[in-house]
Amino acid sequence: MSDVSRLGADTRASVHKMAEALGLPRLEAGWVWLAGAGPGDPGLASLHTLAAIADADLIIYDALVNEALLAFARPNATIVYAGKRGGKPSPKQETISRQLVAEARRGKRVLRLKGGDPFVFGRGGEEALALTREAIPFRIVPGITAGIGGLAYAGIPVTHRDTNQAVTFITGHGADGDLPALDWTAIANGSPTIVLYMARKHAPAIAMKLMDAGRAFAEPAAIISNASLPSQTTRITCLGELGQVAAEADTPAIIAIGENVRLAAGLDWLGALTSGKPLDPDPLKRDRLQDAG
Amino acid sequence: MSDVSRLGADTRASVHKMAEALGLPRLEAGWVWLAGAGPGDPGLASLHTLAAIADADLIIYDALVNEALLAFARPNATIVYAGKRGGKPSPKQETISRQLVAEARRGKRVLRLKGGDPFVFGRGGEEALALTREAIPFRIVPGITAGIGGLAYAGIPVTHRDTNQAVTFITGHGADGDLPALDWTAIANGSPTIVLYMARKHAPAIAMKLMDAGRAFAEPAAIISNASLPSQTTRITCLGELGQVAAEADTPAIIAIGENVRLAAGLDWLGALTSGKPLDPDPLKRDRLQDAG
Repeated sequence: MSDVSRLGADTRASVHKMAEALGLPRLEAGWVWLAGAGPGDPGLASLHTLAAIADADLIIYDALVNEALLAFARPNATIVYAGKRGGKPSPKQETISRQLVAEARRGKRVLRLKGGDPFVFGRGGEEALALTREAIPFRIVPGITAGIGGLAYAGIPVTHRDTNQAVTFITGHGADGDLPALDWTAIANGSPTIVLYMARKHAPAIAMKLMDAGRAFAEPAAIISNASLPSQTTRITCLGELGQVAAEADTPAIIAIGENVRLAAGLDWLGALTSGKPLDPDPLKRDRLQDAG
Repeated sequence: MSDVSRLGADTRASVHKMAEALGLPRLEAGWVWLAGAGPGDPGLASLHTLAAIADADLIIYDALVNEALLAFARPNATIVYAGKRGGKPSPKQETISRQLVAEARRGKRVLRLKGGDPFVFGRGGEEALALTREAIPFRIVPGITAGIGGLAYAGIPVTHRDTNQAVTFITGHGADGDLPALDWTAIANGSPTIVLYMARKHAPAIAMKLMDAGRAFAEPAAIISNASLPSQTTRITCLGELGQVAAEADTPAIIAIGENVRLAAGLDWLGALTSGKPLDPDPLKRDRLQDAG
């Protein structure tokens, strides 16, 4: 059980007041809600997620969930951390699923809280299927995924008319820990922007495969560590140097590859806010691009 | 100006109480926040977005924003609808940008509210660059995009270990309204799951290109209209019949193509909730797949 300090009853009541005004459903006894908490900034959690935190009898949460949100839990709620801690491995998926089922059967209001979105490389589908197999009623509450929201905190639009009409999200870490067995040549040719999750380890191999398939050494790339948290750091580099720069970055990290990364020079609102960084009004150098075209 | 009814001061105060407890920043005078409101369900809006609605002097919002959220606006806030209405075209991007700049310069707290996420096929980058050019301070507030959250409301995980380690998001509607000029053969080969935005019109052409490149006629596909709203409808079909089925679907619609769509049979929690639909505990028919492999 986690020693999370709790806010007063009146602050918790403010969440219920907000939820009632919008007619939001409540997390009921015997149900499991499988919810995303967003990439880190507690302000990026959804209203459903906050309301579920305030209602739950049991909360099982992962490493990337911002613990500030848990202060809204009931004073007598049980809060269980299910991430890795101090070298110890995280509990097995099966153990977590068994606990969700058992507590829902006991009539508890159960919240399974995950970082980002539960269905974006989050194994939420597996946990939800375990609930289906045991006929436990559940709701999925999507969250803001780091591959979109984390990039936005670095001033990088995941899509932009002038740069890309498609974007591909890839996990850099297959089920076995190896590089995913994908057709990297097709990805290089089909996906103008590529966003990699959990890819620090395999970043050199991925960059090499993309360049072998014709992507340029100089193509812009970014690595955002601890996205949307006060500890966020952004490294802007190029595909040819991605592997080396990624090795120096903290985890968790999101990697973006593509021309849209150039927009950070004009849109890094967080850098402007925290360190007065000047923003470039023409980050794509459109005049130059038009000359070249 | 929009005739949106407003909640009482105490309900608005509940939002500030929640925001203060988390130490969230306030939307300040002279600033513009460019925020996503999520795919439709007001419970999927973020805490930042709700707090900004409660703080803003001026809110300019798009067609896909749920108007229930606007009831949290100040009684004297100006609320401007910037979507299409009754056959009239929506205001030009430039007109909206000029208004954001002018009102921020006048010292207003300005909120630009968009459906989904402002940086996922939402033209948020263009609006933000207009602010950079005029040196208006701004914050980007990401939102839950329909391509992830809308799929979750149909019980479709956008990624799942057993089906796909990558997903590609594509707009079906280029800047000129034509089919985007992408390498569809490479996309067919590189992207096990494809999610299409605004693609009803070009769905037949896209399906044909994907099948020409080797994707199977029988590959599962889904079309989700009005995702996450009470009016949501989901059509499960196959790639070969996608064009025809899409033509019958309401807009806005999100299209998903890939083996992960099969998971809806086991994970359509909303169907189970609203119509008692039974869920299949083995939607991927793993035994059968293993026999075949």
